[in-house]
Amino acid sequence: MSQGVTISGLGEDRLVAHLTVGLPLTSSVVLGPGDDCAVMRPPTGKGHYQLLKTDVVVEGVHFLATSPPEAVGWKAAARAVSDMAAMGGWPTHAVVTVVAPGRTPVSWLRGVYRGLVRCARAFDFSVVGGETSGAPDGSPVVLNVSLLGEVAARGWVSRSGARPGQAILVTGRLGGSLKSGRHLRFQPRLAEARWLASHFRPAAMMDVSDGLGQDLPRLAASSGVGWTLDLASIPRHRGCSLEQALGDGEDFELLFTVPARRCGPLLEAWAREFPRLPLTRIGTVAAAGHHEPPLQGGFEHFRE
Amino acid sequence: MSQGVTISGLGEDRLVAHLTVGLPLTSSVVLGPGDDCAVMRPPTGKGHYQLLKTDVVVEGVHFLATSPPEAVGWKAAARAVSDMAAMGGWPTHAVVTVVAPGRTPVSWLRGVYRGLVRCARAFDFSVVGGETSGAPDGSPVVLNVSLLGEVAARGWVSRSGARPGQAILVTGRLGGSLKSGRHLRFQPRLAEARWLASHFRPAAMMDVSDGLGQDLPRLAASSGVGWTLDLASIPRHRGCSLEQALGDGEDFELLFTVPARRCGPLLEAWAREFPRLPLTRIGTVAAAGHHEPPLQGGFEHFRE
Repeated sequence: MSQGVTISGLGEDRLVAHLTVGLPLTSSVVLGPGDDCAVMRPPTGKGHYQLLKTDVVVEGVHFLATSPPEAVGWKAAARAVSDMAAMGGWPTHAVVTVVAPGRTPVSWLRGVYRGLVRCARAFDFSVVGGETSGAPDGSPVVLNVSLLGEVAARGWVSRSGARPGQAILVTGRLGGSLKSGRHLRFQPRLAEARWLASHFRPAAMMDVSDGLGQDLPRLAASSGVGWTLDLASIPRHRGCSLEQALGDGEDFELLFTVPARRCGPLLEAWAREFPRLPLTRIGTVAAAGHHEPPLQGGFEHFRE
Repeated sequence: MSQGVTISGLGEDRLVAHLTVGLPLTSSVVLGPGDDCAVMRPPTGKGHYQLLKTDVVVEGVHFLATSPPEAVGWKAAARAVSDMAAMGGWPTHAVVTVVAPGRTPVSWLRGVYRGLVRCARAFDFSVVGGETSGAPDGSPVVLNVSLLGEVAARGWVSRSGARPGQAILVTGRLGGSLKSGRHLRFQPRLAEARWLASHFRPAAMMDVSDGLGQDLPRLAASSGVGWTLDLASIPRHRGCSLEQALGDGEDFELLFTVPARRCGPLLEAWAREFPRLPLTRIGTVAAAGHHEPPLQGGFEHFRE
């Protein structure tokens, strides 16, 4: 982190005033940052549900002190956007929490906010509030983003709808996200997930955040099913081993299932709609208890 | 913190499963914790706006490692409830983030969740999701609560409506919150604020979190006004000096203004409605630039 004015030198009120200038606000926002709460018009019409998600990145776990601050802000917001995508929904409003030691440079935090704002503009949501707190010297910076979103009441997709016989698919390529720096600049698959939800309604969907080796068993457990994977078909980033593709995590690709008979038409339509992003069938949903091959590993917090 | 199984020993999935059992869920919740996002029905009817707030407590800043975990959980949620109250609204759904080193005992975190759940039941909101992350050894525990809420579209109260000549009032008593431990078990003034908003519609309102000496200038700045305070009238907790009442912070009482002619009827009605909670007129809104007395201090994060 570079030198300059620190957040303890500036003080909380001026810091908040600095950070909240020019935040993107859509027409649904009645009152933006600076009061006790943000005030917003709820979605109109009966056809929509709301989504709520909170997500955190921690220095030393999800980014480093040397990571570019704009990329850190982008990542913090984009992770939560990826979760909304995985439900077939989209984000509408964000609130941000920053916990940082007093000696953190204000310029660093402004960089983080530039990244947040870039993500908000890219995916069309408002940033309606923030919270800042000091922390003891030497504490890692913690950046939490909570997102409110919407989804079609008939179009939301959980992790629990997978049924034996369905095809298992994954977007993009897996592995090497941390090593390559992709984890700081990934594109949440928001447009792709909305297209999927409205055209091919996946039976179950989630985003791959901790690695396929860990996230597929989660989806299977939620659905009460097993899997048969074709390991050779798993799309890997250049230079990545199968182990890395299964275990590195932070891919933020979509993992989902559809009835097998719809797989062919889906792959054809996808290639026309998203010609630059691969979509790959990697296996078949099996009965509960059938784990071929057994999977373990992936990027799990806490486990050492 | 006591001994026993640590969160790194349990692992993320089992930790989340442990913590999310039996969370309170109201009928608006379509899908609770455990998926990529929570899914909720939006408020029905045109008469309501939504509120969104995020709030954080940090070990070593807002609580200590020796603070009872239930009280820490209560405080983390109650602070955000207090912000909703200060808008004249009420909470509906919460999502929780816990950042903690792997060696944190699971029993401690379960205590925190008991406190969160007690607050959710007391103020009738759902806990629809959570996020956990590890942190480097020695990092403080960070607990973030984001709240979604509602408010009558014609009944919300910002900080910016104070006008010269209005009476300035405060609920309860101020000072000594940290020393006495009240900051860990305070009651957000939710019922009181809803009654105020519907019966006497304050012109401006906020909760006193950083001390009257800091929060009144904030309300005044938002409204573009000044103040004349009667320092002798400021209600203090037993044993607290005026300086402590102005500067200690973490009171979580309501600070608001009403037209002066309504002050008498309000005080009478209040005494009937809330006989055990004092309501005190402490001064009068003045023109911008008139600060009698000048105020400074209060509990400000970052400033050292």
